[in-house]
Amino acid sequence: MNLSEIQTPAVVIDLDKVDANLGRAQTFIDQLGMRMRPHVKTHKLPLFARQQIALGAVGITCQKLGEAEAMADGGIEDIFLPYNILGEAKLDRLAALHDRVCLSVTADSAYTIAGYAARFEAARPLKVLVECETGMDRCGVQTAEEAVNLARQIAAAPGLRFGGLMTYPPPGQGLRTNEWLADAKAKLEAAGLPPEVISVGGSPDLYKAAEMQVATEYRPGTYIYSDRMQVAWGHGTLQDCAMTVKATVVSRPRPDRAVLDCGSKALAADLSQSPGHGHLTAYPDAVITRLTEEHAVVDLSSSEARPEIGETVWVIPNHACVVSNLFDFVYLARGEHEVEKALVTSRGALT
Amino acid sequence: MNLSEIQTPAVVIDLDKVDANLGRAQTFIDQLGMRMRPHVKTHKLPLFARQQIALGAVGITCQKLGEAEAMADGGIEDIFLPYNILGEAKLDRLAALHDRVCLSVTADSAYTIAGYAARFEAARPLKVLVECETGMDRCGVQTAEEAVNLARQIAAAPGLRFGGLMTYPPPGQGLRTNEWLADAKAKLEAAGLPPEVISVGGSPDLYKAAEMQVATEYRPGTYIYSDRMQVAWGHGTLQDCAMTVKATVVSRPRPDRAVLDCGSKALAADLSQSPGHGHLTAYPDAVITRLTEEHAVVDLSSSEARPEIGETVWVIPNHACVVSNLFDFVYLARGEHEVEKALVTSRGALT
Repeated sequence: MNLSEIQTPAVVIDLDKVDANLGRAQTFIDQLGMRMRPHVKTHKLPLFARQQIALGAVGITCQKLGEAEAMADGGIEDIFLPYNILGEAKLDRLAALHDRVCLSVTADSAYTIAGYAARFEAARPLKVLVECETGMDRCGVQTAEEAVNLARQIAAAPGLRFGGLMTYPPPGQGLRTNEWLADAKAKLEAAGLPPEVISVGGSPDLYKAAEMQVATEYRPGTYIYSDRMQVAWGHGTLQDCAMTVKATVVSRPRPDRAVLDCGSKALAADLSQSPGHGHLTAYPDAVITRLTEEHAVVDLSSSEARPEIGETVWVIPNHACVVSNLFDFVYLARGEHEVEKALVTSRGALT
Repeated sequence: MNLSEIQTPAVVIDLDKVDANLGRAQTFIDQLGMRMRPHVKTHKLPLFARQQIALGAVGITCQKLGEAEAMADGGIEDIFLPYNILGEAKLDRLAALHDRVCLSVTADSAYTIAGYAARFEAARPLKVLVECETGMDRCGVQTAEEAVNLARQIAAAPGLRFGGLMTYPPPGQGLRTNEWLADAKAKLEAAGLPPEVISVGGSPDLYKAAEMQVATEYRPGTYIYSDRMQVAWGHGTLQDCAMTVKATVVSRPRPDRAVLDCGSKALAADLSQSPGHGHLTAYPDAVITRLTEEHAVVDLSSSEARPEIGETVWVIPNHACVVSNLFDFVYLARGEHEVEKALVTSRGALT
């Protein structure tokens, strides 16, 4: 299949850029002496997970049980699920998954730990890390003391094993995150509970991972494709972006306006620090000012070059991960002519 | 199946509210003497399209060819596709669809019309309406004169039939839209090309449709489910919203914060005029301040009542249509106990 045969809108992944993005990151993390554990939420494709492991990753990270189940089906054997898994139905699924792969999870409350403790047994204990909030204002224990308390509860449960600490550091706060984690590590050691793993993540600060010396594992997700948000955070350039949305100019109602056939159901409405809803590779001065469901409205007033009706354009999206989650298929391209259609296996695996 | 068995996050549709929303709107449009042609982009389910037609709709509206193909498969026989369909591959699909159902489309350029004209034949002409821009700053001809020009081009093509005018009026601008369309209608009549159909749309102004007296058809979409955006526009109340996202409180890291398991991959990042990313039905003073992919961060500081970890909550999303497009399945509920899982047939039918 050729790129020209793909009907729009469609997601096209440049495999040469994927190879470069994955290779560069793995080498960098290897040189730091950290372990790589990529987050598959970005691509949702077992074939890329297997490539990441072949390059040296120790396993993968999934954000949802359904995602982890699909990756286990796809042959992945070591999965970290940094989420509070709650409720009987999900604990059943977690137990079934634990029988199939090397699994670890997180908890940030006694409630979550009690659920795990009631379900798992000493014969095959579940590894549980404590999630720490280091500035993201999301989940996680608020203090090192709380982390020690939860670690004690995990260690005291026969069916659980304390696995260490996990955090998603706020971008640009590597040094402060390292301080937080180093303090918690010291307190855990003092309590006789040394953390085996200290897991950090985030593509924005991937190449500043040295700031988090105390970390043992890194979980980047978006680095495989990159996107406008990542570039705005300082992670690589627009040329590194492996995901583009192929679109068609369906209307030129005024000289300064084009309308594309990729709306919020294709590009998603996530905003970046850069203006607009995506970057038109051939028209860098054009701004996608507005998305409705099936239309992208492009302001051409600052762009000398202007596309024609019927023309194909390529858009680098603001946020690659949510775009992957909108399409059942993506097209994997090696140049113009070697193009393959691939099912986004765990798309919509939301539970 | 019971509501309590549904794993989170999940979309639940209240069928009693759907019935009420559809019935009220059909009666209203009937009384105005307009024809109803609902937009299926909101639900993407043939079963609801069939219900809309059983209630009196003359046909349906689809925004994408793939959506229309899925609806034709689902037994719908009259489809309006108000989009510029461009390119050989899509014109092939359009022709195949035209052989199966009563089909009409739009054009806002000579380019689009030329594509249709080259493909369709006098033996079975394609009905083409001219899209008009009446203030949405999206697609459409800019003046009544342009509309007449395009109508002439359509009428001159042996394989095409001029069907009338179509617009998506900007919310709150019914009277101005009516003026625009009435002027275009007069000019078309003067040119010997009276418009058979004048099609307007939008759930926000559905109950102000009388302002657009010149219109013959109304295309509401979101009215079937409604959502926070619609309520903010003045379309009904939160009690009319038939779509809710069932979610679980997975973390309570601080007294004033809850985290839910429905992030931007479940609620979508579309913003409403109301603050936050959704309305928690049982905690109306709580604000979903931030979505990351699999987490919704809830600020409880203004809410006296506060949910516990593990608790089920129900969220009315900002924008129902993009939520439908994220889930492979929705749950159709008649009360607590009669719950059925339904495939969102044309989810992801983006081309």
